[in-house]
Amino acid sequence: MRFLAACRRQPVDRTPVWFMRQAGRSLPEYRQLRGEGSILEAVASPELAAELTLQPVRRYGVDAAIVFSDIVVPLVGIGVDIEVEPGRGPVLHQPFRTASDLRRLRPLEPEQDLAPLLQAIRLLKKELEVPLIGFAGAPFTLASYLVEGGPSRTFGRTKALMHSEPGVWARLTDALGEICLASLRAQVAAGADAVQLFDSWAGSLSRREYREHVMPASRRILEGLADTGVPRIHFGVGTGELLDLMADAGADVVGVDWRVSLEDAATRTSGRVALQGNLDPAICLAPIPVVERATRDVLAEAASAPGHVFNLGHGVLPETDPGVLAAVVELVHSESIR
Amino acid sequence: MRFLAACRRQPVDRTPVWFMRQAGRSLPEYRQLRGEGSILEAVASPELAAELTLQPVRRYGVDAAIVFSDIVVPLVGIGVDIEVEPGRGPVLHQPFRTASDLRRLRPLEPEQDLAPLLQAIRLLKKELEVPLIGFAGAPFTLASYLVEGGPSRTFGRTKALMHSEPGVWARLTDALGEICLASLRAQVAAGADAVQLFDSWAGSLSRREYREHVMPASRRILEGLADTGVPRIHFGVGTGELLDLMADAGADVVGVDWRVSLEDAATRTSGRVALQGNLDPAICLAPIPVVERATRDVLAEAASAPGHVFNLGHGVLPETDPGVLAAVVELVHSESIR
Repeated sequence: MRFLAACRRQPVDRTPVWFMRQAGRSLPEYRQLRGEGSILEAVASPELAAELTLQPVRRYGVDAAIVFSDIVVPLVGIGVDIEVEPGRGPVLHQPFRTASDLRRLRPLEPEQDLAPLLQAIRLLKKELEVPLIGFAGAPFTLASYLVEGGPSRTFGRTKALMHSEPGVWARLTDALGEICLASLRAQVAAGADAVQLFDSWAGSLSRREYREHVMPASRRILEGLADTGVPRIHFGVGTGELLDLMADAGADVVGVDWRVSLEDAATRTSGRVALQGNLDPAICLAPIPVVERATRDVLAEAASAPGHVFNLGHGVLPETDPGVLAAVVELVHSESIR
Repeated sequence: MRFLAACRRQPVDRTPVWFMRQAGRSLPEYRQLRGEGSILEAVASPELAAELTLQPVRRYGVDAAIVFSDIVVPLVGIGVDIEVEPGRGPVLHQPFRTASDLRRLRPLEPEQDLAPLLQAIRLLKKELEVPLIGFAGAPFTLASYLVEGGPSRTFGRTKALMHSEPGVWARLTDALGEICLASLRAQVAAGADAVQLFDSWAGSLSRREYREHVMPASRRILEGLADTGVPRIHFGVGTGELLDLMADAGADVVGVDWRVSLEDAATRTSGRVALQGNLDPAICLAPIPVVERATRDVLAEAASAPGHVFNLGHGVLPETDPGVLAAVVELVHSESIR
């Protein structure tokens, strides 16, 4: 299992590779099964979610599967009125704005609230020959959707709440952290071999904001998984200034995007963690020779990293040609023979 | 003129302060004059553009004015079919996709193509008691709008063109660079006391992409202004990994956002340039005591910087309370007496 070994910084025969959003709209077999429907409909069916999870494993021969789901699924499970609009993202018609909104978050009861997700994981464990990654959205990123009411470029309302009502903010992120931890522990109990905590938008924060207002809740999640023994991947975009803190929060693997070289990332994290990344998904819209050159650059930079899981620096773009990703997998495997 | 002195890393009596997008929708007097119209209508009238430029100077007592205009104005001037949709940004109905689109860019004839802008600058020079900043969009950021057809999160098409047709990309950015340089030289000739080159989206690039595909055209602009003697500010968002390259491109001042402390920014630029920034505009949506604390933090970090122009790390958000920005100006001036 070269993916799990690399996460643990153990020797591997070849560099493992998987892609964030490897399942989804970039695959013709996905579009054929799914059309334009909401992701929340798809994840309500364990059989469908399992099939969508398997599609990229069959097509690409990646070294890990990630269960087909969405970071808002636990929130939907406890009754928060979120929709996921195709091409836009999570949307709330009544955003969280005051302390009274905290009542809208109740503790997660995974076997009830996440039944289809956990069933999908159990089905997948019977089929898969590669490790399965479970995941959750981190408290800051989830809170940003709840507070903004949808995707944001500036996170203005979220940061205003964080700074003007730090007590409410702490209770909000604590409550979200409990939900995330319960979700991830249940996914591991159902069979997930590793977990990824997506703090996708943490890169919008200053170091001080991250350390004081975001890291505590994320740390409780990651440390709360230590006894499970599964590798914990901690991911965000544009987090070059936060990599050491994201490692210190209790990660085994830290995600890195294309803005920071893997050499610099290894320095910033003092070699304490494995690194995952960092091909720019936008590069994958270029012709294959361009993508292959960029892939070789990533592998060369990773030579000094203490454990490397090849991935993109963010999710596969919907317009990506699957043939390009297939070429990346083949190249990573052939170039990295030890 | 403490603004110009700080740009040149000369002694100042107090730290100068201005705000990107200090004119605009956050001001009630702006909304009263402008309603919801397109910015392109406003900048077509020199008298109106001058008045909108003056509004924040009168209200806040900032140490510099920036001429009210838009980075796409030179492109509109040469006949490219761009609209600026309020709340969205520049939109092209026919994006640039192939070499033949390069024909849509002709050289800029500033006195003809930028007549209202240059006239606004001449009017302002009679009225203003603080320096006036002229500006242009940098070739990468302008090219991203031309190629994507509008604002983008991923810059997928732009990067695909950059990598798959580097010759076309170089011709595109060279042509845009010539237009920018002509625009900035004309603005200086009309009276601008400093210039800012906005490469707002350069932070989406890897260092290698920036160095090979973006820096050359930006360098020609900045170096092409050296003989004018006006300070050259070079700005982008999320450019922590690029600060040294943005300085080396020929800047006197480099813009820094809230992700990087001014101390780190000074280290990364080896103290060769002045620094502009770096209060998070989202913080300005919080109550005044929170904003004042953050302002003091910026001033404290700047103590070791070799020249500091206080600003936000990106533009004023439209929902900002002008009273908050007034408090920031007062605090910067009162706390920084030398």
